[in-house]
Amino acid sequence: MSEIDELRATVDVLAARVRALADQVEIMQLVAQYGPAVDSGSGEAAAALWTEDGSFDAVPHLRMRGRDDIAAMVGGEGHQSLITNGCGHILTVPHIVVDGDQATGRAYALNIRWDAGAGRFWVARVSANTWRWVRTPEGWRIAERVNASLDGTAEHRDMLAAPTRSGR
Amino acid sequence: MSEIDELRATVDVLAARVRALADQVEIMQLVAQYGPAVDSGSGEAAAALWTEDGSFDAVPHLRMRGRDDIAAMVGGEGHQSLITNGCGHILTVPHIVVDGDQATGRAYALNIRWDAGAGRFWVARVSANTWRWVRTPEGWRIAERVNASLDGTAEHRDMLAAPTRSGR
Amino acid sequence: MSEIDELRATVDVLAARVRALADQVEIMQLVAQYGPAVDSGSGEAAAALWTEDGSFDAVPHLRMRGRDDIAAMVGGEGHQSLITNGCGHILTVPHIVVDGDQATGRAYALNIRWDAGAGRFWVARVSANTWRWVRTPEGWRIAERVNASLDGTAEHRDMLAAPTRSGR
Repeated sequence: MSEIDELRATVDVLAARVRALADQVEIMQLVAQYGPAVDSGSGEAAAALWTEDGSFDAVPHLRMRGRDDIAAMVGGEGHQSLITNGCGHILTVPHIVVDGDQATGRAYALNIRWDAGAGRFWVARVSANTWRWVRTPEGWRIAERVNASLDGTAEHRDMLAAPTRSGR
Repeated sequence: MSEIDELRATVDVLAARVRALADQVEIMQLVAQYGPAVDSGSGEAAAALWTEDGSFDAVPHLRMRGRDDIAAMVGGEGHQSLITNGCGHILTVPHIVVDGDQATGRAYALNIRWDAGAGRFWVARVSANTWRWVRTPEGWRIAERVNASLDGTAEHRDMLAAPTRSGR
Repeated sequence: MSEIDELRATVDVLAARVRALADQVEIMQLVAQYGPAVDSGSGEAAAALWTEDGSFDAVPHLRMRGRDDIAAMVGGEGHQSLITNGCGHILTVPHIVVDGDQATGRAYALNIRWDAGAGRFWVARVSANTWRWVRTPEGWRIAERVNASLDGTAEHRDMLAAPTRSGR
């Protein structure tokens, strides 16, 4: 192999490594936008984190399909009441496994609310979250998110098991 | 274009991508140092995360300007009382938008305190945080941070809206 | 220096920078797996995050040495009772300092539990965490983790001070 071919091969390997890192960081940043979007009441910004037909299940009550459903949730009475009374939707950095143009992840979401009477916040929900992301021409987007309370329900905590273990 | 010029162009593109990733990771790591600094009472370490004349507003009470103000806050009676009674200042990974040598971000901060009588912690504050960082010869530093409780105040939750939306 | 030697030198510098970023991201992802592993009751998955003889001190009660101890803790009565009643072990992204094949870090862990009677969660613990990681042929692993409640104990909050300050 010529000197330049060798160097080109080195650069190719490096480029693949950079792409893998960029995937991780972009997905972290995608997830980091959810809380700020919904807690500022930005329904379209929240919806835009999903693919056009992406899904979001907030077990057991909310089953959203497509961006319009997500924007409608943010604009809806329940969510508006939450944020006007004071609320933070706090997501943790997920464990991310990228496989080509798909990726899956596991993480937590906290829902913490202001209690004006008590002068303190209270933790309404700590949830298991599973994510499926897809690479689109506009970057990574959420294809599927499931959020289920860690209230002792076996199926909810099983969501946090590694994909290889549960066969997902 | 010669073979080597072509490869050099490829490397230049890759280098720009790596710089963008490094910006993201460095800013994440800058933010990750705030909590440990203040909760260990390390006033100078906390102050060093800011630029020399950086600002930190903890709405509505605290208006800090420059590193000395920040170090003074950490060494002050109020903060010392917090940490000797048991307290964690927990910041989330921000959504980061880099624009050259400037960057802005949005995230959350939790202030959780030990209640020795009850034998449990309580959530004193969940706050919206907006950040402005600048690239300095020593690396990224905080130029401006605003922290405001998500207690239902409209202006506070509006801080979490994306910059393009609110025109910031 | 010939053109190709110059370009090779540029690529070498870039490769070192990518390696440094990869270390940061891999360690973030290592830490992101702890909570999901223990909250899904996956003892072996949790243990595999450590080196074979890695240690985990949950001050003051639990002193684990080696993977078997960690897996045994996850399978043990205490932890099983936590997760079947509803619990989230939430870790923050650490501040990470890499030094060759070793790295150290500082961060927080939250232990938040479901109270079925009250219909809300409560914060059982906010802890300082110090980490030591090592690079192994299989990637970064935890060599040492110490977890100690931020309940006002001076030694616990000192864990969060920067290594250079405390001489660690």
